[in-house]
Amino acid sequence: MRSNSFQVLINLFMKFPGIGSRQARRFAYYLLEQDTSVIQQFILALQNLKQEVAQCPDCFRFFARKTSIGERCEICSDTDRDRSLLMIVEKDADLENVRKADVYTGLFFVLGGLVPILDEAPETKVRSRQLKAYLTRLMKEGNLKEIIIAVSANPDGDHTANYLHELCAPFQDTGLKITELGRGLSTGSELEYSDRDTLKSAITNRH
Amino acid sequence: MRSNSFQVLINLFMKFPGIGSRQARRFAYYLLEQDTSVIQQFILALQNLKQEVAQCPDCFRFFARKTSIGERCEICSDTDRDRSLLMIVEKDADLENVRKADVYTGLFFVLGGLVPILDEAPETKVRSRQLKAYLTRLMKEGNLKEIIIAVSANPDGDHTANYLHELCAPFQDTGLKITELGRGLSTGSELEYSDRDTLKSAITNRH
Amino acid sequence: MRSNSFQVLINLFMKFPGIGSRQARRFAYYLLEQDTSVIQQFILALQNLKQEVAQCPDCFRFFARKTSIGERCEICSDTDRDRSLLMIVEKDADLENVRKADVYTGLFFVLGGLVPILDEAPETKVRSRQLKAYLTRLMKEGNLKEIIIAVSANPDGDHTANYLHELCAPFQDTGLKITELGRGLSTGSELEYSDRDTLKSAITNRH
Amino acid sequence: MRSNSFQVLINLFMKFPGIGSRQARRFAYYLLEQDTSVIQQFILALQNLKQEVAQCPDCFRFFARKTSIGERCEICSDTDRDRSLLMIVEKDADLENVRKADVYTGLFFVLGGLVPILDEAPETKVRSRQLKAYLTRLMKEGNLKEIIIAVSANPDGDHTANYLHELCAPFQDTGLKITELGRGLSTGSELEYSDRDTLKSAITNRH
Repeated sequence: MRSNSFQVLINLFMKFPGIGSRQARRFAYYLLEQDTSVIQQFILALQNLKQEVAQCPDCFRFFARKTSIGERCEICSDTDRDRSLLMIVEKDADLENVRKADVYTGLFFVLGGLVPILDEAPETKVRSRQLKAYLTRLMKEGNLKEIIIAVSANPDGDHTANYLHELCAPFQDTGLKITELGRGLSTGSELEYSDRDTLKSAITNRH
Repeated sequence: MRSNSFQVLINLFMKFPGIGSRQARRFAYYLLEQDTSVIQQFILALQNLKQEVAQCPDCFRFFARKTSIGERCEICSDTDRDRSLLMIVEKDADLENVRKADVYTGLFFVLGGLVPILDEAPETKVRSRQLKAYLTRLMKEGNLKEIIIAVSANPDGDHTANYLHELCAPFQDTGLKITELGRGLSTGSELEYSDRDTLKSAITNRH
Repeated sequence: MRSNSFQVLINLFMKFPGIGSRQARRFAYYLLEQDTSVIQQFILALQNLKQEVAQCPDCFRFFARKTSIGERCEICSDTDRDRSLLMIVEKDADLENVRKADVYTGLFFVLGGLVPILDEAPETKVRSRQLKAYLTRLMKEGNLKEIIIAVSANPDGDHTANYLHELCAPFQDTGLKITELGRGLSTGSELEYSDRDTLKSAITNRH
Repeated sequence: MRSNSFQVLINLFMKFPGIGSRQARRFAYYLLEQDTSVIQQFILALQNLKQEVAQCPDCFRFFARKTSIGERCEICSDTDRDRSLLMIVEKDADLENVRKADVYTGLFFVLGGLVPILDEAPETKVRSRQLKAYLTRLMKEGNLKEIIIAVSANPDGDHTANYLHELCAPFQDTGLKITELGRGLSTGSELEYSDRDTLKSAITNRH
């Protein structure tokens, strides 16, 4: 259909994660068939999104403004959190998954992406400057004892972990520990098909 | 995240065709990370969609208003189309695919859905009343010679074809022909795995 | 494991249709774990296979010797079959599927493969010589009226159909009809995703 | 086809891991089309398999007789292996994968299966009796210090681990350590989609 808005919607949907041209077109047709009330609901949510949601100046996660009184998110301003631990994650969804699992009580930092292996200027892709500033503030505060690099177990994740080790190195002199998440069999792993790295970690971390 | 708008967006995306809760959440996070300009573009497209697009009172397809001077869509108002043929399709995307193939020059009617096998009140699910009214108008006009039932080759499609045969029966007395799309091997069909109906049609329609 | 037979079995299984090295290895381990009686049953079936099964000198399908008294298979020697029709199929499994569908009563010929598009010497890949000889015999017999080319609806199938048209051309002068299976929507085809060729055939073959 | 051997082969192939009736039939047709020499090679490999391969009376893995002088397999009779460690695995393929990874130098025991959660008589499904006998022999020998339970990370694996802990408990009194493989992120694990157990282990095992 030669409507501008219809084409704009298809183009916008094609940039959504995992969506190709065929499904983007189905989405646009789906919206065409909805009542005006649904479209209004959609528009309203999009308009309010940026107002309802703020980005925390400490951890850089997005958070609902109403969940926190101050400028910082409800995790960073929660005095019950263990301020001796800082976990660096790639993205908001990683943070939310770790938080939902209820197995970690420290602070977070959202890096905003992974550093691809062939990338020449990683500091422009991820929040390097912001991480350094936050680490400096936390060091002054004096509680931080460990940084946990919590990235996915794949080549870009490994590369990002190396990058973060280098970035954090200057802070290490001061007695700060830098760790990575443990490797081993994850739920569902089969011994027959596990790769060498996973088997090695699983044997080393046996308990 | 406990933002209302964020949750509303997830709920809206979960109703999109083929989208589950996990992907709906990824879409919402994706939007959070976009610049305000992208969100504005999205809002604008949604606001304009209903104004730019009209629904044709004859064939009920959605069309860009700018492609037609009158109230009817550019296909229905095109005097070059063969008004002796009317093809009934399930949905707009079917019509656009047939149109793109450039193998049919007659009129269309978009039924707005299929009639599920166990449905007791099909006239409320598809545009039965509108189809009857359009057929009545076309019969008065005096050019219509054939109705082509063009539904997908699956159980709901077959059931809809039966329903349409019944619905069109009163008009058949006047010499109107009612046909269905031909069955046989479709591109990619393998003889080894074809079902009995397809093989039977393929042998009957051999040429 | 460094057993020769174990490796030989893996290599043999890797040539089975659709089997990669990982599954071939699982098959070999599976056999290792079986009782001797299962292995004996396997060996016996392999030993008897070639004795129990013959290849028909007319249609070239494999058939169980016990199902036919003579040298020819039970289809070719069945006097109730319609000897005015000959259907050429790619392989035994295609023939069995058409036969199971019970929609065709004529004779068959198993070509033994498709002619790949870039193949330079098709006569060495498929039973061209045998087909010509069989056609010659059938023409002398005087009943044959139609050859049905029944290949899968994909590029290699189309190419094979062209090749068979050429191969059969000399016999066409004598009034023999050469047809192909009908195309159109096959069971499960959706209008939205059908390609141009399928839509064109479906509209042409509407009924 | 109504050949006995053909049907027997289909039935045998249908019991192969991961093979359904459709693929079993394709395998049988595939064999029909092979030269007698290929079938002979197959028969020979099946005939020799049981003669070439023995089952180790210690670890119960299958091994090529030629790789070991004595009755025991080349791993169990290798005096360079660390006899203070015994790893219990489910099946031969698991053992071979760990061995290939070259990250473990101790002994093995192949359990011959997992203990399904609802199984009432596990001692009949896995080599419980044989494991106890082997442990008794190893204890007498006096070198064994640790049993590593190395099962897949899924419910049946967990249940089998519990079963093995109970089975090994009597030996534990003597100072024997019983461990399990470490859990955590395995290669390819994404933080966003990791379950609670995996995240908990990954954080606990951070290094």
